Amino acid sequence: MKLLILNGANLNLQGTRDRAVYGSETFDEFIPRLRAAYPEVEIDYHQTNIEGEIVDALHAADGTYDGVLLNAGGYTHTSVVIRDAISAIAVPVVEIHISNIAAREEFRHTSLIGGVAIGSIVGFGLDSYRLGVEYFHHRQ
Amino acid sequence: MKLLILNGANLNLQGTRDRAVYGSETFDEFIPRLRAAYPEVEIDYHQTNIEGEIVDALHAADGTYDGVLLNAGGYTHTSVVIRDAISAIAVPVVEIHISNIAAREEFRHTSLIGGVAIGSIVGFGLDSYRLGVEYFHHRQ
Amino acid sequence: MKLLILNGANLNLQGTRDRAVYGSETFDEFIPRLRAAYPEVEIDYHQTNIEGEIVDALHAADGTYDGVLLNAGGYTHTSVVIRDAISAIAVPVVEIHISNIAAREEFRHTSLIGGVAIGSIVGFGLDSYRLGVEYFHHRQ
Amino acid sequence: MKLLILNGANLNLQGTRDRAVYGSETFDEFIPRLRAAYPEVEIDYHQTNIEGEIVDALHAADGTYDGVLLNAGGYTHTSVVIRDAISAIAVPVVEIHISNIAAREEFRHTSLIGGVAIGSIVGFGLDSYRLGVEYFHHRQ
Amino acid sequence: MKLLILNGANLNLQGTRDRAVYGSETFDEFIPRLRAAYPEVEIDYHQTNIEGEIVDALHAADGTYDGVLLNAGGYTHTSVVIRDAISAIAVPVVEIHISNIAAREEFRHTSLIGGVAIGSIVGFGLDSYRLGVEYFHHRQ
Amino acid sequence: MKLLILNGANLNLQGTRDRAVYGSETFDEFIPRLRAAYPEVEIDYHQTNIEGEIVDALHAADGTYDGVLLNAGGYTHTSVVIRDAISAIAVPVVEIHISNIAAREEFRHTSLIGGVAIGSIVGFGLDSYRLGVEYFHHRQ
Amino acid sequence: MKLLILNGANLNLQGTRDRAVYGSETFDEFIPRLRAAYPEVEIDYHQTNIEGEIVDALHAADGTYDGVLLNAGGYTHTSVVIRDAISAIAVPVVEIHISNIAAREEFRHTSLIGGVAIGSIVGFGLDSYRLGVEYFHHRQ
Amino acid sequence: MKLLILNGANLNLQGTRDRAVYGSETFDEFIPRLRAAYPEVEIDYHQTNIEGEIVDALHAADGTYDGVLLNAGGYTHTSVVIRDAISAIAVPVVEIHISNIAAREEFRHTSLIGGVAIGSIVGFGLDSYRLGVEYFHHRQ
Amino acid sequence: MKLLILNGANLNLQGTRDRAVYGSETFDEFIPRLRAAYPEVEIDYHQTNIEGEIVDALHAADGTYDGVLLNAGGYTHTSVVIRDAISAIAVPVVEIHISNIAAREEFRHTSLIGGVAIGSIVGFGLDSYRLGVEYFHHRQ
Amino acid sequence: MKLLILNGANLNLQGTRDRAVYGSETFDEFIPRLRAAYPEVEIDYHQTNIEGEIVDALHAADGTYDGVLLNAGGYTHTSVVIRDAISAIAVPVVEIHISNIAAREEFRHTSLIGGVAIGSIVGFGLDSYRLGVEYFHHRQ
Amino acid sequence: MKLLILNGANLNLQGTRDRAVYGSETFDEFIPRLRAAYPEVEIDYHQTNIEGEIVDALHAADGTYDGVLLNAGGYTHTSVVIRDAISAIAVPVVEIHISNIAAREEFRHTSLIGGVAIGSIVGFGLDSYRLGVEYFHHRQ
Amino acid sequence: MKLLILNGANLNLQGTRDRAVYGSETFDEFIPRLRAAYPEVEIDYHQTNIEGEIVDALHAADGTYDGVLLNAGGYTHTSVVIRDAISAIAVPVVEIHISNIAAREEFRHTSLIGGVAIGSIVGFGLDSYRLGVEYFHHRQ
Repeated sequence: MKLLILNGANLNLQGTRDRAVYGSETFDEFIPRLRAAYPEVEIDYHQTNIEGEIVDALHAADGTYDGVLLNAGGYTHTSVVIRDAISAIAVPVVEIHISNIAAREEFRHTSLIGGVAIGSIVGFGLDSYRLGVEYFHHRQ
Repeated sequence: MKLLILNGANLNLQGTRDRAVYGSETFDEFIPRLRAAYPEVEIDYHQTNIEGEIVDALHAADGTYDGVLLNAGGYTHTSVVIRDAISAIAVPVVEIHISNIAAREEFRHTSLIGGVAIGSIVGFGLDSYRLGVEYFHHRQ
Repeated sequence: MKLLILNGANLNLQGTRDRAVYGSETFDEFIPRLRAAYPEVEIDYHQTNIEGEIVDALHAADGTYDGVLLNAGGYTHTSVVIRDAISAIAVPVVEIHISNIAAREEFRHTSLIGGVAIGSIVGFGLDSYRLGVEYFHHRQ
Repeated sequence: MKLLILNGANLNLQGTRDRAVYGSETFDEFIPRLRAAYPEVEIDYHQTNIEGEIVDALHAADGTYDGVLLNAGGYTHTSVVIRDAISAIAVPVVEIHISNIAAREEFRHTSLIGGVAIGSIVGFGLDSYRLGVEYFHHRQ
Repeated sequence: MKLLILNGANLNLQGTRDRAVYGSETFDEFIPRLRAAYPEVEIDYHQTNIEGEIVDALHAADGTYDGVLLNAGGYTHTSVVIRDAISAIAVPVVEIHISNIAAREEFRHTSLIGGVAIGSIVGFGLDSYRLGVEYFHHRQ
Repeated sequence: MKLLILNGANLNLQGTRDRAVYGSETFDEFIPRLRAAYPEVEIDYHQTNIEGEIVDALHAADGTYDGVLLNAGGYTHTSVVIRDAISAIAVPVVEIHISNIAAREEFRHTSLIGGVAIGSIVGFGLDSYRLGVEYFHHRQ
Repeated sequence: MKLLILNGANLNLQGTRDRAVYGSETFDEFIPRLRAAYPEVEIDYHQTNIEGEIVDALHAADGTYDGVLLNAGGYTHTSVVIRDAISAIAVPVVEIHISNIAAREEFRHTSLIGGVAIGSIVGFGLDSYRLGVEYFHHRQ
Repeated sequence: MKLLILNGANLNLQGTRDRAVYGSETFDEFIPRLRAAYPEVEIDYHQTNIEGEIVDALHAADGTYDGVLLNAGGYTHTSVVIRDAISAIAVPVVEIHISNIAAREEFRHTSLIGGVAIGSIVGFGLDSYRLGVEYFHHRQ
Repeated sequence: MKLLILNGANLNLQGTRDRAVYGSETFDEFIPRLRAAYPEVEIDYHQTNIEGEIVDALHAADGTYDGVLLNAGGYTHTSVVIRDAISAIAVPVVEIHISNIAAREEFRHTSLIGGVAIGSIVGFGLDSYRLGVEYFHHRQ
Repeated sequence: MKLLILNGANLNLQGTRDRAVYGSETFDEFIPRLRAAYPEVEIDYHQTNIEGEIVDALHAADGTYDGVLLNAGGYTHTSVVIRDAISAIAVPVVEIHISNIAAREEFRHTSLIGGVAIGSIVGFGLDSYRLGVEYFHHRQ
Repeated sequence: MKLLILNGANLNLQGTRDRAVYGSETFDEFIPRLRAAYPEVEIDYHQTNIEGEIVDALHAADGTYDGVLLNAGGYTHTSVVIRDAISAIAVPVVEIHISNIAAREEFRHTSLIGGVAIGSIVGFGLDSYRLGVEYFHHRQ
Repeated sequence: MKLLILNGANLNLQGTRDRAVYGSETFDEFIPRLRAAYPEVEIDYHQTNIEGEIVDALHAADGTYDGVLLNAGGYTHTSVVIRDAISAIAVPVVEIHISNIAAREEFRHTSLIGGVAIGSIVGFGLDSYRLGVEYFHHRQ
């Protein structure tokens, strides 16, 4: 099983920005921990701040991965093109959020992505990603 | 660790209604499977179609359980009182949905509950509950 | 043929409240009259002020009745769970209203129930129920 | 007793258009059946695709008929002038719809006509008209 | 000076419908009175319940009349085509209403016509027409 | 007959501001012209830029004048208190506007005043005032 | 004089939940204090988390009490049926809130109940109830 | 204890305007009655129709009074500056309304003031003021 | 191949109204030019200002033409019945507009017709019609 | 060069109210500092809590000053008349705000004034005024 | 004549994604066919998934091409910057869509691009591009 | 002191596009002028049309610059990710606009950026940037 963790805008700052909300663990620290917890799963990681590159990465994931964990960051609430990309590919996508977006500003309560994903895991910190991996791993 | 799975309206029909959407497994079948998967976790199950009884059950859960997995069913989109009950208690609540509510009617895209829960797990069928248990179990 | 008349909130006051709008005949007087008009139809009557008990009654009606005449009262405009219950059962449901809700406050112009019922009969006083029985009786 | 069935836009196509929704019986077939069922009621039939001619017909119905069954078709959702015409005449009007408009597109959920009619019968196929005749016939 | 009074839907009922709102004088009585008050003005009168015929009449008025007093009735609130017709012709149009539409239902507070007319005279009963004639007569 | 012309905010600039829209005649020039046209009517004039002073003036007009021509200027679209003042007094008020507010910005399309006035005269330049006087004068 | 204090959802937690907002006095402590302050008034107390039971209690109050102090809790903002129940009974109802709902989330700014109650007393802590009793006591 | 009753627009007409809604007692009659009921409280009274003078009065009340009973009249629904003035001062303000604004026009259902006041007392006629005084007097 | 060009309200004025927007060529001049460009296509032309006659013409086109180019004029933005007529017939309809409606008033940005047509050609002047003919001609 | 700093509602409290937001410097302290920084600019200062007096001051500024720095306070979000006054005068107006209104309540995000001013300087504390003076001074 | 076909997000998948909607022809197959049909027109093709690169390409097209056929994909509904780029350049742009966006989700009914383009061609599959080329070719 | 001027979409066209609105000076001409005016400030300049590269540049600015002047162009109204980037970094950001966005289309009246910036300077042409530098320079 091969999974892609695909992170969007501002997630390169994880661990340094607003630690009260996002925690202090970086993805450089978290990904190895996650791989260790699921040794039988191959986990790739990609991050970009550019909306169109998320589209590119989703296209490239099709036929390459068994699943994608997508945290599009702020693009979640505005991006029709990422929604379209998910609809256009066959690989299943799970929407991930570190913070509980339903507890934040009104404009974060709408996700353009959730409706075309398999489902969503929201609000558990970095553990949201682990639960996403758990989902794919378990349904094998 | 002691968890409560608290189900709201129409979830007593699980396994018989609209199987294309909800699957054919009933909670009578699923709960024992879930307990077997997490033998070290005590899992109670309660279902009611009455909004105020969900409020009662949440009050009663406070001080009794280490966590609640709440699928309020259709009350998710309309119930201020369940929201208030979650806010009023100390036990952490995770919002659960079997189907992907973001892919359904517009009025299901708003959750009054998500913003006061720890987080939400949406769209993975009955596996949403297992991931909720996994969350509580792992964070011990 | 066996039909259930299922009445929601405040309909226990029929005949005493706002007689200019609702008329002065009570259901205790009306139901026998209705049964007399349709002797070949078995007509049961149930009323509750509790939303979840309407859900319960709809579940119980499935497999028991050939049709349900549902006047959910004020829950018509707010209840996702009653809508979901109607969708989840196989027995056909007809939406009934005594008064013409389209001629009243704005918030009464929206029905969450109409869209999942067979159809709606609105505004004919208690005669709305008779027309509902007529519908089921005639289509046999 | 003398009733007018007044049909608006596109109802001349009944029986040929979208039979899954509207059924395959034409008004040429249905009206004689309806007259046969209510021999003591004189039933006239008029159809037009022109909004203003519905207004004309409503004006003409005043003092001529004991009741009007009005299915304004798509004008239901947009016509202030038909609403005004109903308000301006003394003959009682019942709103009729073949399909369940509450189960269709959002813009069909609003009726400008319902609020000034006696009441509405919606969703029972051509049987909606029969129930309308039944209403007028019975209340004599 | 030659003026056209152009009346839309339901205004043929003036004097008989809802006299508390509209008064009891018909246009058959009013127009001669108006002509007598302004003997030097040629006043034509036309009424139709059909939206497109109002458009036709506006087109025909162009080059024929020095001004149009238009009371489109209920079309005031819904008709883009009448608005377009007024914009397309050179003859000045004054919007007229018998009742005070701002004091009635919400949907009557929007006029599609007012913005392309010279101005509006609203709420003075049939006297609204006289003031419109006064306007054109005086500005000669 | 005694009438009050009551002008609100910015109308002291009439004749100097935006002449393409408002014309170049000032009220100092217009009022004498108007009095000359209606010698049998006593016409008082008052202008203020302060919302509450319009309220004061309306209160004072009650029992003193036979009618008020009120052009509240920009307060038209925002002032509940002027609306309340008109409702609270017995003297009839006619709403006046120089420019055609329906042809201007969206926020000028709503009048809080029109619904409690007798009626409205909008868009005829200063002639709107004359038509208002004409209305009161004629209905004596 | 006999009054009913009728409390809705989550008010059983008063004194223990969010003390910064609601204070630390429970109803078990408050009601005796209130009875002591108004010895000549008979004060009954009832609380339920179930919407339909509030409807039941309002029905039962009719003819039994001289007044009802109703704090419907979160149902305030969503319940058409409680609104309908208040409209259907003759006993006067005063709306009570402990916290200042106008200072909280947007969805708490709308009350379906206020418009059919005598009036509302909002934001004075438990003292809101005392002022309600004072109102009924004084108007005797 | 020293309290200010501060009344806004149109409240100078109390007792003469719309007596069915507001009652026939004037403030000149009511204030002495109120002072007599609370002899130990010093009660000042001020009324103005000018929004900015309400702001002035609130500023002046700071440090001078122990509480303000503010009925801003129609400014309640539109005035950001009164809201800001209340926020800017330390003296507690209670919002007062004579009529039940929640039972009136839609635009009266929004209060800009309630959210920054201590609380609101709405709908009890002039007794709303007495209950406000009672509140301040009792909490000493 | 046989096509119908069906024009709605105000299009009879083409060539004379607002030439800056619509150009100065009339349909009397344009249609022969168009026929000359596509000699192998039979092109009929019909225009009416009456909404219901557009419905009639669409019904009549079914089974007679291979395609319809429909420019409904101002009815584009308001007509449910034309939408319904297009849905009810089998002949393919292409939506045509001379001007770029997306660059005009807000209310012209919504088309009720586009969603049930094959597609739309908007903004190319009379050339929009030629492109519509080209589409039908080429897909043969 | 002669500039007017024109302050609206509640700005007389600057330096004493909510110092965390507005700072502790008063205008009595700030204006001399500002004059000292721009000795070649004549700076007048005027403050009023009355909307109509802001209108008066803007009218008076026309022809007297080379520029106006206007901080209308809470009137920014509601005042059509101030907007109209700015449009009616020739002297350029710059909109000033001390706090960052875009970071505060939703109703403060709309400015009726910005669109008719030269531009806006928002959020820099009292330094916003200095930057406004700098703008006028520099563009000489 | 030199034209640019500029495609936005997800259009690189044309021919493979959702063939029922978009058809099975790729741009690699279509473009040569198109060039063969218009041998006298030089047709360049560019596709990118990145919004800003569409802006770049539009800038570069200015002065280089005689026209641009722009299908911005999902950016159509959200991109102010592409709208601004079209406004900023002199080369005429035609908006192209393969599918009928008016027949799809609500959020696809709004185009930010259409209003600044020459016009739009929507819903004809890849033939939409050919009609765009036809437009430019013909108007030479 | 080291400042970054960060420009977003279409600002590379400054000086050539719509000179009536934006002026004819390019940034190549303006930046040296600006540096000359503030010799003691180090001013870097960066422009990109790609949203995600603005995010990258903001991240890179953190710890490198003492302040950022950000004109995000059209992204101002749509970009959650730029908002998030500003929130995530410590360097203060000032929002800059050349034109007065409040005087343009409705969709330009909302800024997602303003609320997380220090403040905004809008509408002064290129002088907006100079005022931004002046702000940072002066507050040293």
